[in-house]
Amino acid sequence: MNTLRINAARLQDKIRLLSAFGINDAGGLDRTTFTPAELAAREWLKNQLHQLRLSVRVDEAANIWAVRNGQNELPFIVFGSHIDTVPNGGKYDGALGVLLALEVMNVFEENGVSTRHPLELVSFSAEEPNPFGLSTFGSRAVSAKIGAKHLEGVHDDKDQLLTDALRLAGGDPDRFEQARRKPQELAAFLEVHIEQGKRLLQQDIPVGIVTAITGIYREEVTVAGEANHAGTTLMRDRKDALMAASEIMLAFESVCRDHPADETVGTVGKIANFPNAANIIPEKVQFTLEIRGKSRDDIQEINNEWDKRAAEITERRGIRLERRLILDQAPAAMNPLVMSICALQSQQLGYPSYPLGSMAGHDAAHMAALTRAGMLFVPSIDGKSHCPEEESRIEDMEKVGNVLLHSILALDQQLDT
Amino acid sequence: MNTLRINAARLQDKIRLLSAFGINDAGGLDRTTFTPAELAAREWLKNQLHQLRLSVRVDEAANIWAVRNGQNELPFIVFGSHIDTVPNGGKYDGALGVLLALEVMNVFEENGVSTRHPLELVSFSAEEPNPFGLSTFGSRAVSAKIGAKHLEGVHDDKDQLLTDALRLAGGDPDRFEQARRKPQELAAFLEVHIEQGKRLLQQDIPVGIVTAITGIYREEVTVAGEANHAGTTLMRDRKDALMAASEIMLAFESVCRDHPADETVGTVGKIANFPNAANIIPEKVQFTLEIRGKSRDDIQEINNEWDKRAAEITERRGIRLERRLILDQAPAAMNPLVMSICALQSQQLGYPSYPLGSMAGHDAAHMAALTRAGMLFVPSIDGKSHCPEEESRIEDMEKVGNVLLHSILALDQQLDT
Repeated sequence: MNTLRINAARLQDKIRLLSAFGINDAGGLDRTTFTPAELAAREWLKNQLHQLRLSVRVDEAANIWAVRNGQNELPFIVFGSHIDTVPNGGKYDGALGVLLALEVMNVFEENGVSTRHPLELVSFSAEEPNPFGLSTFGSRAVSAKIGAKHLEGVHDDKDQLLTDALRLAGGDPDRFEQARRKPQELAAFLEVHIEQGKRLLQQDIPVGIVTAITGIYREEVTVAGEANHAGTTLMRDRKDALMAASEIMLAFESVCRDHPADETVGTVGKIANFPNAANIIPEKVQFTLEIRGKSRDDIQEINNEWDKRAAEITERRGIRLERRLILDQAPAAMNPLVMSICALQSQQLGYPSYPLGSMAGHDAAHMAALTRAGMLFVPSIDGKSHCPEEESRIEDMEKVGNVLLHSILALDQQLDT
Repeated sequence: MNTLRINAARLQDKIRLLSAFGINDAGGLDRTTFTPAELAAREWLKNQLHQLRLSVRVDEAANIWAVRNGQNELPFIVFGSHIDTVPNGGKYDGALGVLLALEVMNVFEENGVSTRHPLELVSFSAEEPNPFGLSTFGSRAVSAKIGAKHLEGVHDDKDQLLTDALRLAGGDPDRFEQARRKPQELAAFLEVHIEQGKRLLQQDIPVGIVTAITGIYREEVTVAGEANHAGTTLMRDRKDALMAASEIMLAFESVCRDHPADETVGTVGKIANFPNAANIIPEKVQFTLEIRGKSRDDIQEINNEWDKRAAEITERRGIRLERRLILDQAPAAMNPLVMSICALQSQQLGYPSYPLGSMAGHDAAHMAALTRAGMLFVPSIDGKSHCPEEESRIEDMEKVGNVLLHSILALDQQLDT
């Protein structure tokens, strides 16, 4: 068993095949959840799983699961990630975790490996922010953090209902709660992901062992001013929502920059302006404001401070501000046993490893509420992610794949539940 | 002839009928050029013109023309405006000028008025900024300011080609230059429009006589930063295009506010953010920047100053700025003879009138390059325009309609060419 290794050439081939779904002219991937490109990628993945003679099912939240039976009546050891991308995203965020899980299953299959626990690969639905406003959708459904009531009336910018989109992907909004898993069904969860930062590569370490996943706080902010003609309205008579929003966004940026903790970051990634015509003073601007931090306190400090500055700006400009909470995901610690098993396997394979926090949110944060959860990070070249230039070295992916494989076997040996 | 008056009740009825095309839930009009709602409004208008037994034609730029013959072989006296609207616009901007022209034709028809000059009503295509990026499209085609080469490859956000949209409206992109009119074909042009400002109402004057139309300078500004993950990229490592754009827009606003001339105004009305996802640091922002002023010098002063400030911002933030000229429309003076005829007719009708500059652009600015052009303004309630609240008093519309009617008759008498 100790000599088992993943097949890097086969992994590269699968990365190439999967990255054909949603590829755009810029070389990026447009594979937002429930789009035609993403639905096609799901079919490809299910086909791959069938070829390994796994027992494949799609749950009510459209998560894809594939079971390899174990010798005993024990809970499942689960591993995987997601295959949806952000708009114009990269080939690895999510996909690498699913493809390494597939590769591990492939190695087990071709070597006739028999485990005590049943093994289960998962590809979660809609991990990335998406037009329905629900990220980590699949893992939140599985961990009972969302239910059918969260789907009601939710639609994208083109008025497609989430419930309709979910059905297209094989989900079932009418029986949505049946996607939930019970803690006693699960022994552990392991997810491989790219680091999306520079810390591992700067230290020349191939294997990252995640200690905790950042908290993510997200709001939709609406700035309401007054539409008017861009020619006939004097500068002093304007209540320009876009100028007010600009000032608020800059105040928010300044508050985040001034925070003492490096890992406390804030982003306005998405903005919509209304009515958005060259000769009309903007009436309304909506933007998402996101804060990430290692602790709830850090996030709260940012929130208190930008709120104070925004109040001054809205008062001075005579405009209105509305805030709506979209996401308040607590920081999640990874399981110490899983972390130590990963570190030991890495050592036995001769690879340096390094413990680090994840500044990105992941499905593992939600799975941690259900079972022993752990994550392995692969170094990202230049730290780039969520863009076409997202890249990792195949030798690093191979090493982390081998740590995944042997950590699964070690968990299978060491866990009795 | 001196006793001829327009029929205010009939005008109100037509305003009601035309405003049904494109009405939205907010009570505003979504009748952007070449949309199904605007195409339907065109059909309605053509039907109205046919009912007055006018000779109706649609030219290669999809402008609608309707001729009423004169006694002599003289050039045309033309009057009209446009029926397209901005997104969520009002009932009067453009439409009132076309409906008053229709009403004048109606009065002439029912009273058997015979003129020396042939009269021609016009409804210009695409006066408002539109998804194809070409405002005052129809009058620029007529005045030879644009030609077939300006249509090549132009498309909207949904990849509809302008040439295809133009054909839907009855235009002919292959023979586009045939829409041009020769100066010797035209005797004069008169356009009625709402003021879109508060000057007339504040002085309680029902009739505005336009002296000149503002210059409009418009650029598309592209701010190029670097896309990256919103969690794993420290604040100091970011090249956030949206934050840079915000700072540039605020600098531009400040430059416009500081300019000594009240009528010099600047607006950012339209903005697009890429890739526009909650957890991606914006890579690119594009916005339209517009400057209006009474003189080219005023516009140039604003341009010089914001350029200087933007250079400092882009340098400090390590981002790139690109500027593309979209429109550089010179201020246009109205014809003194037309102005004096309008003022005299207003006086003879017993209505106070007032000379004022137009801070909005109009088709008349382009027609001024071809013929004697004039404009009449109707007071706007609260100065509101380009919004559902756009409103004018029927008694003011009636008065300006009577001035239009009698100015056409006076021009017919006084002009020999």
